[in-house]
Amino acid sequence: MKRAHKPSGIDRRALVSGLALLPFATPVQAQPTPSDPLASWNDGAARRAILDFVRATTDRASPQFVPEEDRIATFDQDGTLWVEHPMYTQVVYCLDRVPAVVAQKPDLKKIEPFKTVLSGSREAIAKLSLHDLERILVATLTGMTVDTFAAEAAHWLATAKHPRWDRLYTELAYRPMLEVLNCLRDNGYRTYIVTGGGQDFVRVYSRRVYGIPPEQVVGTAGGTKFAYDKDDKPYLIKEPKLLLNDDKAGKPEGIHLMIGRRPHAAFGNSTGDREMLEYTGSGEGARLMMLVLHDDAQREYAYGPARGLPDTKVGAFTPELDAEAKKKGWTVISMKNDWKRIFSFD
Amino acid sequence: MKRAHKPSGIDRRALVSGLALLPFATPVQAQPTPSDPLASWNDGAARRAILDFVRATTDRASPQFVPEEDRIATFDQDGTLWVEHPMYTQVVYCLDRVPAVVAQKPDLKKIEPFKTVLSGSREAIAKLSLHDLERILVATLTGMTVDTFAAEAAHWLATAKHPRWDRLYTELAYRPMLEVLNCLRDNGYRTYIVTGGGQDFVRVYSRRVYGIPPEQVVGTAGGTKFAYDKDDKPYLIKEPKLLLNDDKAGKPEGIHLMIGRRPHAAFGNSTGDREMLEYTGSGEGARLMMLVLHDDAQREYAYGPARGLPDTKVGAFTPELDAEAKKKGWTVISMKNDWKRIFSFD
Repeated sequence: MKRAHKPSGIDRRALVSGLALLPFATPVQAQPTPSDPLASWNDGAARRAILDFVRATTDRASPQFVPEEDRIATFDQDGTLWVEHPMYTQVVYCLDRVPAVVAQKPDLKKIEPFKTVLSGSREAIAKLSLHDLERILVATLTGMTVDTFAAEAAHWLATAKHPRWDRLYTELAYRPMLEVLNCLRDNGYRTYIVTGGGQDFVRVYSRRVYGIPPEQVVGTAGGTKFAYDKDDKPYLIKEPKLLLNDDKAGKPEGIHLMIGRRPHAAFGNSTGDREMLEYTGSGEGARLMMLVLHDDAQREYAYGPARGLPDTKVGAFTPELDAEAKKKGWTVISMKNDWKRIFSFD
Repeated sequence: MKRAHKPSGIDRRALVSGLALLPFATPVQAQPTPSDPLASWNDGAARRAILDFVRATTDRASPQFVPEEDRIATFDQDGTLWVEHPMYTQVVYCLDRVPAVVAQKPDLKKIEPFKTVLSGSREAIAKLSLHDLERILVATLTGMTVDTFAAEAAHWLATAKHPRWDRLYTELAYRPMLEVLNCLRDNGYRTYIVTGGGQDFVRVYSRRVYGIPPEQVVGTAGGTKFAYDKDDKPYLIKEPKLLLNDDKAGKPEGIHLMIGRRPHAAFGNSTGDREMLEYTGSGEGARLMMLVLHDDAQREYAYGPARGLPDTKVGAFTPELDAEAKKKGWTVISMKNDWKRIFSFD
């Protein structure tokens, strides 16, 4: 793994300036909507499925009309709204945070998996077990107040860059999907992110990048603990206690917990999204289920393992998922064929 | 406990008709807002605190202006938005559901605490332990699909009546608080319920009664389990697994989980709301913290035990809470003095 960004210990001032940067960074989604709401989409089945769904559910004369208060659309994030390769952005964040954590607790320096992360060896880091990764997540995502975490994440997001494009991670949102988000919102839909990633992490940038406020981000969530500081001021500290594992079956469960009803549209790209699409599709009336297929090695990445695409560790569009999509009428979006452009900076 | 409503076994058709009734029941909050947004409030410190807060946070020229996207207000429900005496409405619901549960599982008929509930003895029911009550909650609130639960609760709400007023429970929302909800929403605030009551229960009627959509109800929440029926259709079943105990310290923790940021206004009426008000008050800029004091035995109920009011089992406005309110500048709402009317039907 090539790292474009090497953080050192972060002081309070840097954190505050990191946060301060955020609202003024170029908003990815703020370009005025052109007369064609899906301008970055080639004409085809995917584009037509979106427009047909919007028409069917928002035209009062349609038998499939959905009242505005029930218009809910859910979107997976990694691989659906932004790049997930070569590694989930949040995992990169956690690895990048290790030096700061070790600076606070020097004993960790000689202990695995921290020793391996500090070595910077791409090969060794890639071989870390799931258990090792969990230890890194706990060390870098819990034990601090929710405000400190948000400031640390904001600071990192304002500076860390993706090695391939040398761009901020927040610039790597897919332009065509931002158009879908805007198009649905313009038609009365409330758009939600439903991600296996950390809820608190995604909430730091969701409004700026996707136009989605924090309360509309459903993600893997840990508990917090309410406590008082020495001046009797209350705070919330992030606990290493999993409340919601928002992946696979956890996605519909998280949707019920956080939204309380079945979406009318759901977008994903991997087996982690299967249950969310099944749940969405099992409702009555018009429903839109879509899967992004990463078949564009030139402009982004190509991985499956469906349709002869390579099998990778991150993201899994399997032949079984492909078959289920075909059987149930879910629409597969080919990045290569359906998208005129990938990013807003293209 | 006098029960105004005696449910028997509920069949599917009754459930569906119960649900169907809901959208057409008289909406409590739908009267047009008069020129005075707080028409049911007497002039006084409480009314002025609300109006001053709204002005300070929504006037662009104000140094305490809050951008619309950050305008969050949270409301406890029982005793703050509607009547909680002589028993929390949801507890009445659970007791009323016992006969239907026993009809499904006849073995329970001879087992405590179900035997006592079926006896109908007010005295015996009042003496049930917290452990007994938990067994009743588990038996009546879990083990069914989320859709079945919503239909059962909707059916009950469409028929069960409060013994004192002989009115549907959903008619017992406080008119002055409905005006506060509307006033805040009219000024760009997103209003949330943050209740120790069951999230799934309150969501059944929150939109109709309070104008609050399901996703803006944060409550005590159990887990659900995603599964498939024999036709491979997915469903969610309510599990006896507590995810969030949304009371006391659980309220700010629930707010972080579900909303992701600190409210600017918070309303409660008991020690269960203390931490929510402390958390809200610890933010910068203008903050509004209010507590409803039940000091009106004639029009509603009188209980404390603050200010010499009687100590009751349900709801606790203690002298300590009263002292903290005074010290921190929280505003106490006297039902007797601050409210011209209590209910919309008055």
